[in-house]
Amino acid sequence: MTASTQFKLYYWGEIQGRGEFVRLALEDAGAEYVDVARLPKAQGGGSGAVAEFLKKSTAFAPPILVADGLEIAQTAAILEYLGARLGLVPADEASRVFAHQIELTISDFVLEIHDSHHPIAGSLYYEDQKPEALRRAAPFVKERLPKFLGYFERLVARNPSVTLLSSGHSYVDLSMFQVLEGLDYAFPKALARLAPKIPLLCALRERVRARPRIAAYLASPRRIPFNQQGIFRNYPELDVAP
Amino acid sequence: MTASTQFKLYYWGEIQGRGEFVRLALEDAGAEYVDVARLPKAQGGGSGAVAEFLKKSTAFAPPILVADGLEIAQTAAILEYLGARLGLVPADEASRVFAHQIELTISDFVLEIHDSHHPIAGSLYYEDQKPEALRRAAPFVKERLPKFLGYFERLVARNPSVTLLSSGHSYVDLSMFQVLEGLDYAFPKALARLAPKIPLLCALRERVRARPRIAAYLASPRRIPFNQQGIFRNYPELDVAP
Repeated sequence: MTASTQFKLYYWGEIQGRGEFVRLALEDAGAEYVDVARLPKAQGGGSGAVAEFLKKSTAFAPPILVADGLEIAQTAAILEYLGARLGLVPADEASRVFAHQIELTISDFVLEIHDSHHPIAGSLYYEDQKPEALRRAAPFVKERLPKFLGYFERLVARNPSVTLLSSGHSYVDLSMFQVLEGLDYAFPKALARLAPKIPLLCALRERVRARPRIAAYLASPRRIPFNQQGIFRNYPELDVAP
Repeated sequence: MTASTQFKLYYWGEIQGRGEFVRLALEDAGAEYVDVARLPKAQGGGSGAVAEFLKKSTAFAPPILVADGLEIAQTAAILEYLGARLGLVPADEASRVFAHQIELTISDFVLEIHDSHHPIAGSLYYEDQKPEALRRAAPFVKERLPKFLGYFERLVARNPSVTLLSSGHSYVDLSMFQVLEGLDYAFPKALARLAPKIPLLCALRERVRARPRIAAYLASPRRIPFNQQGIFRNYPELDVAP
């Protein structure tokens, strides 16, 4: 990586979405980056610029990171690439592979969270698949939410450092923080009921929130608020008691 | 990697499932490996042995590969690790990253294929979510199937070698072969209708099938037949005309 390296992130500018996992890593590391969609149109920004870039790209979908002449798509692949460069994962192969597989499991979890409000098709509105969403949300809250969170809690319990990796803070903790923030927005009641069973994840969430660069980012206009177009959506009717 | 390296695959023995993507890479490379679930119980095999191993593991779910003292979960992460070691991807970072992001997009596609018959919950039988599956399959066949296959077709069209990577045959071609085989089992009518639009993927499929070690594997009892418990299931009512 040269001194002139600059990261360019191509992701939609109206939602946190999958791009937020990348933004958090770049922000936590204090990396210099351009969030293309959030630049003014006059400077080549806007979500239209992302759509244009995607047409010429070899990626299936955003987020796409451009770095050192490489174009990298898929959130977990971007974080695997960035992790070692930003000091957000140890350099040894065992640590990198372990971190990556946790991140891929977080990706699986995030997709299940998304599909709880979109079980039929991403091209349909929530309102057009609400009966199916209601039916899907019940086993999600009852079975999948405790299963995933219980798994991550057990990983943290192996370490004294309130981190998913034994080596300390890493990019997977940032992603875990984002998932917990999102669940608190989308499923506040279910998360509150589960909280006593996941004290270490709750501690991890507060530890990450207190990191100076993360705290500054969350307080800045760069952090897009949660909204009803993203992965995490607050539909109270889906936040059911198990 | 030492001369004593042996790969151990932990995956369910009754289905191809996600483990099949790993099996195809090991078979194509002629690698020495143990498919634990398919060993006799007296030799420590069976799916019970996989369940026992999972309890002690740091993985969320199978497939899990044990190699060189590492335990690696998540299909795409396993293939990224194996690819370079088995000569199934060029060693340079750009090629590895590009191959990995294609594999991750294949993983996303595979999950959508699976969820076409299980849109509500993995813990319910198909028969208990059939109305929702019927509703989900229609936009899947009409929108998602052509979108994903069209994307992969465009990637192959960039290369003269009927491969997804410009450098030639790689593990992502093996995974693409498996997806096409599975789609032909699960959605034969939809795939036949799309075939004229994806001639290069059809050629890739036949190219992979003709590789001597793959041909030998497909003809062997090691290849588990497609069945109604796996990712790809033949429910004719879901194979609808768009």
